[in-house]
Order: sequence, then C-alpha cells, then structure tokens
Amino acid sequence: MLPEAMRRLVRLLAKLPGVGEKTAQRYALELVRQPQVAEELGAELATLASRVGPCARCGHLAEGEPGAERRCAICQDPRRDPSSLCVVGRVQDLLALERAGAFRGRYLVLGRLLSPLDGVGPAELPLERLLARVAEEGVREVILATPASVDGEATALYLGRELRAAGVAVTRIASGIPHGGELEYADPITLGRAFEGRRQAG
Amino acid sequence: MLPEAMRRLVRLLAKLPGVGEKTAQRYALELVRQPQVAEELGAELATLASRVGPCARCGHLAEGEPGAERRCAICQDPRRDPSSLCVVGRVQDLLALERAGAFRGRYLVLGRLLSPLDGVGPAELPLERLLARVAEEGVREVILATPASVDGEATALYLGRELRAAGVAVTRIASGIPHGGELEYADPITLGRAFEGRRQAG
Repeated sequence: MLPEAMRRLVRLLAKLPGVGEKTAQRYALELVRQPQVAEELGAELATLASRVGPCARCGHLAEGEPGAERRCAICQDPRRDPSSLCVVGRVQDLLALERAGAFRGRYLVLGRLLSPLDGVGPAELPLERLLARVAEEGVREVILATPASVDGEATALYLGRELRAAGVAVTRIASGIPHGGELEYADPITLGRAFEGRRQAG
Repeated sequence: MLPEAMRRLVRLLAKLPGVGEKTAQRYALELVRQPQVAEELGAELATLASRVGPCARCGHLAEGEPGAERRCAICQDPRRDPSSLCVVGRVQDLLALERAGAFRGRYLVLGRLLSPLDGVGPAELPLERLLARVAEEGVREVILATPASVDGEATALYLGRELRAAGVAVTRIASGIPHGGELEYADPITLGRAFEGRRQAG
C-alpha cells in the first residue's frame, strides 16, 4: 500500500542496527514529511564512503579520500602520549573512553574480537600491526580495553599472552561493580571479579 | 572525536523520530561499515521528494513528479468502494487499517487533528475537500477513524457535526477494550467507553 520508492526506502532503513520494519516505516514517513532533511541526508550518505574511512594507523574513523592514507584526529594530535597504547574492540568503545576522558594515549581498534563460534580466530586479529606499533612508537604500556564479555576476555587473554611473550608491558582494564551499583543487583560473575580485583584500601 | 562529515551525519540522523544522539551515532557507524547501504540509501533520499508526495485526492502517499497530479494506489484501484469514505489523521493510520484489511472503501488523510493548544483550529481541517468528495464520489457513509485521543475525539466531534449538518451519514469507529485485553488493566476512560458502546449480545 506504499509506493515502490517508499518500500525501497523502508527496506534500506531496516538495515540500520536495531531497526525493524515498523520503525523503518516511521523514519521513511518522517523523511517524506521533511524533504529538506531527506535531501541533506541523501547528499551526506552519497559521498560518505569517499570522505570517511578507517585511520591507516589505528582504525578509528578519519576524513580523507579513499586513495590517500587517512589519519584520524587522535593520531594527528601531538599532545597524545605515544608511549601508552589502548586496544579496543570497536570505534564505539574508543568514543566512550574519549567521552570519559579516561585516557590520553593512542588507540588501536581491533575491529573484531576472538570468537571461535563466529569463526574469528587469532589470525584475524591485527597482532603484527600491534607489535609493529609498539616497536615503532616506543610504546611502554599496552592497555587491553576489550569488553568484559566472553569474547572480550578471550581476546585480552590472547593478546596479553602474545605481548608479554614479546616483552611488552601489558595491563587489562578493571572489571567490577559499576559506579553507583548495588551489590544486591550485581550478577555473580561481576561480584566474583570485583573480589578478585580488590585492592589495598585506606 | 568524530570526523566532521560523521558529526554532520549524526546530526541529520538525530532528526528522525525517536532517535537521540547515541542512536544516531550507532546508525552512522553502521553506515560507514556498510558503504553499499549508505550509497543506496543516499540515492533514494536524494530523489525522494521528486518521486513521492501526497495523493492529490486523499493525501495518502503516491508516486509521481511534483508537477504532475499524483494519485495513490488506493484511489486508482477500481475495486475500492467509492461510496464509503474513511477519514484518518495520518498516513500511518491508513496503513494500519490496510494491514488489518478492515476497510475496502477510500480514504481522506487529514494530516492534522484539531488541537487548540497547538493552534490547530477547524479552519485547518480540509472540511471543504471532504464535502466536495462526498458530493462528487457519491459517498454514502463517512467513517471517522481519527484516534481515540483528546484531539482525535475533538476532530471526530467537529467533522461529525458538520457532515450531519450537510445531510451526510457519518459513523465513528468503536472505542473499547482491545482484543485480548484484561479489564483489570484497562484505564477508566477505556472502561467507560466500553460500557457506553455496549451492544446487544447473544
């Protein structure tokens, strides 16, 4: 009952993460109501791939032509400490750390985590690139900031072992009760980790 | 920390209904990961306004150039009963009725509901067009299918009065306990309407 052009638009919008047919239809109807937004969004998307892509050094998003070697704002920032390298799974995780202002070094975005069930093995991880950056940039500490999930822990375990074997100092971000969290509502694994990771108090 | 092109994309995506900054960012990152989807979506959006717009007769969405008089699939369908005209608030409501297969006549999409607080008065409603269609198309019944909200009821009340004054048979869709609904969880207004709208049983 919708014009074919609208059905195509709904099908494409439904490819966005977490967007089902109903939400896609809501978006499409709003875009018809706001032709100005539709047009601007169309122009941005048409040229997106030619203007934005992974930083050649760290994998974060960077502006630049596809042919040129893109460098992200963090890798280009001379104030960032090159001796500290933080390994994250996804660009989203890097952005979360940046929002928190928790880290002033540089990053490596893996793009994937070890996941035997999904067929992602150690060979799929950029270990060579990680070791090369450690050597070239004078990295003194690699911080493994993959998520506290099964895949994230497996990835940290594997990379930690390889880095230590190569003589690199490596740490893992802490896992425990989140800020403001009640013990009553924490799951057993989180509680176990909170105990395991306890530190000298007072 | 995102390239300027990404920030522009996030700002535009955040104009979609119910999409905040965080969701917009998730969409934008996915669109960078899927350049094919971004490109196709961009092409659809760039030409959307020139290919889709309101049906000149009923206000539903129709394909066609902006200059040409657009006609939607329902108005063009000879199997639809022209003697029955259903008045709805939005295109979404028309689509919901079509999905339910509840109605085989034609529609008029108001595009807005009476809403004194938002400055929408009777003059903003297409009463002239409604009366013209009743006369031209030999409509024998107008069914008011505006929502069961305050604005929807006010709109139905106003249009009902005007149509009756013009000698047109007019009905209002039923309001009551939804299918599968427990009385225990129904609000007092719904319960009141369910009683008010009771019919002969058995």
